[in-house]
Amino acid sequence: MLVIGEKINVMSKTIGPAMKSREAKPIQELALAQVGAGANMLDVNIGPATKGGPEMMDWLVKMIQEVVDVPLSLDTTNAAAMEAGLKVHKGQALINSASGEKERLTSMLSLAAKYDAKVIGLTLTKAGIPRDANERMAIAVDIIGACAEHGVSLENLYLDPLILPIGVAQQQAMEVVEAIKMFRQLNEPPIKTVVGLSNIYNGVPEEIHGVLIRTYLTVLMTAGLDAAIMDALDKDLMDTLKTIQIFKNEILYCHSYLD
Amino acid sequence: MLVIGEKINVMSKTIGPAMKSREAKPIQELALAQVGAGANMLDVNIGPATKGGPEMMDWLVKMIQEVVDVPLSLDTTNAAAMEAGLKVHKGQALINSASGEKERLTSMLSLAAKYDAKVIGLTLTKAGIPRDANERMAIAVDIIGACAEHGVSLENLYLDPLILPIGVAQQQAMEVVEAIKMFRQLNEPPIKTVVGLSNIYNGVPEEIHGVLIRTYLTVLMTAGLDAAIMDALDKDLMDTLKTIQIFKNEILYCHSYLD
Repeated sequence: MLVIGEKINVMSKTIGPAMKSREAKPIQELALAQVGAGANMLDVNIGPATKGGPEMMDWLVKMIQEVVDVPLSLDTTNAAAMEAGLKVHKGQALINSASGEKERLTSMLSLAAKYDAKVIGLTLTKAGIPRDANERMAIAVDIIGACAEHGVSLENLYLDPLILPIGVAQQQAMEVVEAIKMFRQLNEPPIKTVVGLSNIYNGVPEEIHGVLIRTYLTVLMTAGLDAAIMDALDKDLMDTLKTIQIFKNEILYCHSYLD
Repeated sequence: MLVIGEKINVMSKTIGPAMKSREAKPIQELALAQVGAGANMLDVNIGPATKGGPEMMDWLVKMIQEVVDVPLSLDTTNAAAMEAGLKVHKGQALINSASGEKERLTSMLSLAAKYDAKVIGLTLTKAGIPRDANERMAIAVDIIGACAEHGVSLENLYLDPLILPIGVAQQQAMEVVEAIKMFRQLNEPPIKTVVGLSNIYNGVPEEIHGVLIRTYLTVLMTAGLDAAIMDALDKDLMDTLKTIQIFKNEILYCHSYLD
């Protein structure tokens, strides 16, 4: 299971200002904390970054990889900022993300091919939110076709079925699970899948965030999920993840497996 | 989802003595508490009850059904005690349990037919613990054949794949999940499945009981589990159960669904 730490995000009240003022310390500390807690990749989300995106991504990638030895998930819709990050990234980066939108698909897959990066294919188009697993499949098939066109190996692709908030789209929770099962049938070996887990609780009272994400992660991993952008600093969530891995025989049980 | 409260058990330090001295109050209180917490059936476990089993089960069934309006799961290997309970039970009882052992299978299915009771078919024989999902299937097929012989409708059968403690049989956890999926393929509509959930943590340090049962219940229900003998008084576990039902669209999401 690939755990992609979600914490380095321009929307964060502490990290956003640190990014803008080029203050390395709080960002490096958060990188170290997430890796210490079990993250094996870190998302670096600068948003659309319309002003100074390339400079910011260049600075972030170099500065974060000074202190942690894990690959980064470069999270921006700004293709120039994405390329600036890929240029200086050590090891194999993850492009977060391509989608079913033609322009974004072309630009991000071109970068994935050029830099031999992994890439998330988000099953979303300009036509709007996919309504069910079948619509997600249709977009996934388009993304897979585009990978072939651009020379991106399917081994480097992670399909993201797009989790929606449970409070506004309850039915979609199981459509995402079905989509993961269907995506896995598209190729042998199966194409990998990823989700942005915390989307499930957007707009929901904070006291139920925990049970929602722990339970949903279990449902998704039982269906075959390979990776999640998630809060690696949430000890209860990470304990749940290790417990799922026990049940799936991916790690060996011992009484101290949570320590 | 059928939640069968596990708390009325002769092995309990408070309930065992109350059973023996025919002290109704603590048992009735525990019955009320479990139903109040969401149990829609109550297990009444008197063990092998080699001495005075029939009298004890007769007393228990009448006394518990005085205060709660739910069916009971009569839990004993003593066929005479089982019949004494069935005779006085109001509504449709659950026989817990028949197994693949010839004698127990015959006696319990005869009682199920005679009293139109539901019956748990535990996939266990004298040959020993089943080693994998396929061995569980073979026993399940025998039990189903015996149901036909004895005139027990498959609608009244709950197959139990036998959960083993994670600390001694880690590999078996996923075999149980596979068995549930396989059992569901045996008939249309699918034959229902049940587990004794708490078996998963026998012999395991108490501080990890919670994460183990919550996570395993989620894995099992995702695979299609219909019923569990479990601790209905464990609020975190019941919250997890409701959350799974949200994801499966069995109950409607609202912000207060856990209240």
